[in-house]
Amino acid sequence: MQLGMIGLGRMGGNMASRLKECGHSIVGFDMNPQSVRDVDSLEALVGALNTPRAIWVMLPAGGPTDSTIKALAALLDKGDVIIDGGNTHYSDDIRHAKELEPFGIHFMDVGVSGGVWGKERGYALMIGGSEEDYQHCLPIYESLKPEGEDGLVLAGGVGAGHFAKMVHNGIEYAMMQGLGEGYATMTHSGLIENPGAVVASWRHGTVIESWLLDLLARALEKDPDLESMPPVADESGEARWMAQIALELGVPVPATAAALFARQTSRGGSDDVLKVVSALRAQFGGHVTKD
Amino acid sequence: MQLGMIGLGRMGGNMASRLKECGHSIVGFDMNPQSVRDVDSLEALVGALNTPRAIWVMLPAGGPTDSTIKALAALLDKGDVIIDGGNTHYSDDIRHAKELEPFGIHFMDVGVSGGVWGKERGYALMIGGSEEDYQHCLPIYESLKPEGEDGLVLAGGVGAGHFAKMVHNGIEYAMMQGLGEGYATMTHSGLIENPGAVVASWRHGTVIESWLLDLLARALEKDPDLESMPPVADESGEARWMAQIALELGVPVPATAAALFARQTSRGGSDDVLKVVSALRAQFGGHVTKD
Amino acid sequence: MQLGMIGLGRMGGNMASRLKECGHSIVGFDMNPQSVRDVDSLEALVGALNTPRAIWVMLPAGGPTDSTIKALAALLDKGDVIIDGGNTHYSDDIRHAKELEPFGIHFMDVGVSGGVWGKERGYALMIGGSEEDYQHCLPIYESLKPEGEDGLVLAGGVGAGHFAKMVHNGIEYAMMQGLGEGYATMTHSGLIENPGAVVASWRHGTVIESWLLDLLARALEKDPDLESMPPVADESGEARWMAQIALELGVPVPATAAALFARQTSRGGSDDVLKVVSALRAQFGGHVTKD
Amino acid sequence: MQLGMIGLGRMGGNMASRLKECGHSIVGFDMNPQSVRDVDSLEALVGALNTPRAIWVMLPAGGPTDSTIKALAALLDKGDVIIDGGNTHYSDDIRHAKELEPFGIHFMDVGVSGGVWGKERGYALMIGGSEEDYQHCLPIYESLKPEGEDGLVLAGGVGAGHFAKMVHNGIEYAMMQGLGEGYATMTHSGLIENPGAVVASWRHGTVIESWLLDLLARALEKDPDLESMPPVADESGEARWMAQIALELGVPVPATAAALFARQTSRGGSDDVLKVVSALRAQFGGHVTKD
Repeated sequence: MQLGMIGLGRMGGNMASRLKECGHSIVGFDMNPQSVRDVDSLEALVGALNTPRAIWVMLPAGGPTDSTIKALAALLDKGDVIIDGGNTHYSDDIRHAKELEPFGIHFMDVGVSGGVWGKERGYALMIGGSEEDYQHCLPIYESLKPEGEDGLVLAGGVGAGHFAKMVHNGIEYAMMQGLGEGYATMTHSGLIENPGAVVASWRHGTVIESWLLDLLARALEKDPDLESMPPVADESGEARWMAQIALELGVPVPATAAALFARQTSRGGSDDVLKVVSALRAQFGGHVTKD
Repeated sequence: MQLGMIGLGRMGGNMASRLKECGHSIVGFDMNPQSVRDVDSLEALVGALNTPRAIWVMLPAGGPTDSTIKALAALLDKGDVIIDGGNTHYSDDIRHAKELEPFGIHFMDVGVSGGVWGKERGYALMIGGSEEDYQHCLPIYESLKPEGEDGLVLAGGVGAGHFAKMVHNGIEYAMMQGLGEGYATMTHSGLIENPGAVVASWRHGTVIESWLLDLLARALEKDPDLESMPPVADESGEARWMAQIALELGVPVPATAAALFARQTSRGGSDDVLKVVSALRAQFGGHVTKD
Repeated sequence: MQLGMIGLGRMGGNMASRLKECGHSIVGFDMNPQSVRDVDSLEALVGALNTPRAIWVMLPAGGPTDSTIKALAALLDKGDVIIDGGNTHYSDDIRHAKELEPFGIHFMDVGVSGGVWGKERGYALMIGGSEEDYQHCLPIYESLKPEGEDGLVLAGGVGAGHFAKMVHNGIEYAMMQGLGEGYATMTHSGLIENPGAVVASWRHGTVIESWLLDLLARALEKDPDLESMPPVADESGEARWMAQIALELGVPVPATAAALFARQTSRGGSDDVLKVVSALRAQFGGHVTKD
Repeated sequence: MQLGMIGLGRMGGNMASRLKECGHSIVGFDMNPQSVRDVDSLEALVGALNTPRAIWVMLPAGGPTDSTIKALAALLDKGDVIIDGGNTHYSDDIRHAKELEPFGIHFMDVGVSGGVWGKERGYALMIGGSEEDYQHCLPIYESLKPEGEDGLVLAGGVGAGHFAKMVHNGIEYAMMQGLGEGYATMTHSGLIENPGAVVASWRHGTVIESWLLDLLARALEKDPDLESMPPVADESGEARWMAQIALELGVPVPATAAALFARQTSRGGSDDVLKVVSALRAQFGGHVTKD
């Protein structure tokens, strides 16, 4: 089917390529004039598409996505559909859908997993919106998802797609933290001769078989002590949102939170906490009494 | 090769079967006279094996394993090897090896993963001991492990096998907790129509592809709200040992600990903690001021 | 000085009494016609005060406070000041101040600690607003705070008062959780004959001397095993807000989060997490292999 | 009464001074010939005391305490009592008592809180041993404890004293961490003009009134941004022991553990965990897709 794609960066560009290979008619636009884009303005993009139009927005969450959806609201017609495939907070999806409703413009949110591997492996898609819109855009979704039966779900109404992706990322954080904790326990034990070999051995027959484990085995094969890796990591929002929302819902998420805290600490977030601990120890003589 | 197997319960029995199917000569013994055993005493087991003997002990950790190793020490000859495939604490392995050393009896520890699925999928084996003993028993290990290249590792000297298995279980706990936290966040959100469908969709193309995720999807297919599942879980030792040792090593394992704490809490372990919180709130008027 | 007080419940009523005893002229209003109120409408309250008026709103956060501030905006004059002493989220304070600005109505937020003990011990006050407004209302603040030099602070601009109180509550949660964890470790040890006696002994000469410890000693004196206390506790918002904001700020707050999670778990919040753990264990045979 | 004191460092020396000032007859010994000691050997110490002797051992836990108790076992007579006032693990106390039993030598363990402030404020003492031995040594304990009724407890049999002190330290860790988390949330908020002033204001009328809060207020008064304080802190054993034992007892201690993890992380303990996170992100393209 015909699809407008706004945002031709690493993710959007790869997705557009995959869709073209599947025979879809993609009209791509990017703000960056240096990009290989099919049209050079939002207006031209809208003009190049037949109604009812389907336009995929693949931009950084927040400002860029907000302003683009606002601009599209003024250009599109009743019955057109905007698909936000970025990392938008689900509550912004709900707001976007409400803002578009008076114009009769439909809205779907799509959580996309797959990263740079997606072009090859396919992208897992978690979708929020109406059943009708879902069916309308299904040819696109079917082409993006991995071959086989899984990797695509209509998770619920507007917002549910990004909510599901957010939860996916929370789980990802907990899994990565768990792998890190296990690896570090081995490296500090002085008992395990080659932690990388142990990790590799876990790839089959264990309870923890997983893609992340495969990736860790691969990384350790190239760099057995992970010397090239910095002991710091950012957290990019979605797992944090999950923790904040879970707190609101009254659902304890200590493992997810632990993963977030570890990353934030690696960025210096705990420095003032430790300064207080040091100050208190200095006050009551901790340096002396080892209390 | 020839192997004595002590302990023919679910795990030991299945492993003996798999080994027999692979053409090994297994002499099985179990304390339970009702079991299908080949010999009816430890003495008979030892008598039935050619030297140097290899005997696999597959018993509950602690007392049963301790007393059996002690009994074997008196029966075996120099050059024989005892393999402990149970869930023994790695520090007990090191003690066992030291106790057997004066007798010239070799010792290996094997962490086994696979559970009831192992008979079919193969067992992942993490092994501690000498390179020489490892090579000697390799035919057994090769037959037990999953077909293909992974699932078997000589992790280091005595103790390293159970240490690696212990770490594996810690990772398993963190992964399970992470999946649980994600699922619960979805069920409480009121936004996700069918959490089970979302979980199933994650099986391909996502970062969290894993065997545990597959199992969760399967469980949710049969029981979409997990109504048949109790909201309680025991913790059986190995992940706890990992947390205790990591504390000793100075390696923070907050996600693993979170998983342990969640299980211990489900068994009532936090009741006295909460009673204190309640008592304090009652004291300062929390019931009234919602402080 | 003259002060209007809206909300004469346990907190507002006690505070009005304390202020009257200090010689201030308090005009009290409550929505509840059964309360001992001085006027029977907001309009009457406003009419009874000289300009520039000072009105203290002591109502539940959210709807009741919101609607009352909105109603006052229509009744008050330029230069009047509204003081919100409830448990409002600091971001709502900032919104309220902005909404009142076009009317020239000043706004202060006051975090109040003290609960039912405050009438006797005095209330600790954390205040947000301008230095000018602070000086204007200082007679009120001076009368409410505990005698002596501490217990009163202008924490910063609008919102800072409730922010500081929110942080105070987060610390309170961590302290209470820490006390609970220590007590429970003693009760489960089988080694401490009388945990209450130990707690009482800590009241002097230790690093953990604190009012909460005093309260715990008092509670244990009356009820040595806390048998009358339920092993459940609600969390009432402010500590949760702190955790959510800290996540946003990149400040790891694992101890505060632990306290929140413990309370949420006691209310059943982790049930679905544990159901997943149980389901996974059932799938891979955990019941059998104790994995 | 008469008391031998072994170990005249900061703690032992101060305690000996306090006891002398109270009129007790103290015979002090220290391995260090430079110290101001009354006798120059263990033998001389034993010879200088009347039977039944009471000897207080105030040495680093582990080796020094172990070897001294062993040496005393050979020198003392039936009915003498050894008091271990160091930071010994309670399980070692139980072992020491068993080792001394055949000689008829009594044993008590005393957890001491107070640090460098103890000489002035008095030392809180948590004691393990028999009621009889407790009564015998009570004059010493009464002189060491803070004046007034609290600060001294016979917590239970041998081991209970150090167990109670260990729990005290766990609570201390949670409280310090909670204070640090609160302070850091304020400093990062940009909303609190002077966090130190807020902390100082909390000293009266709040729920978190405590000695640690007093100390923090004092530290912030001298160094408002804690610039002189390092963002790192060691953990010295007792809180870690509590966490390990609580894990064994099935008592979740997430706040205590959080405090430990924060300190261990500040010492680089999480570096390998984060390297794994970084490696995984590099593998799945995290740097690019901000996943």
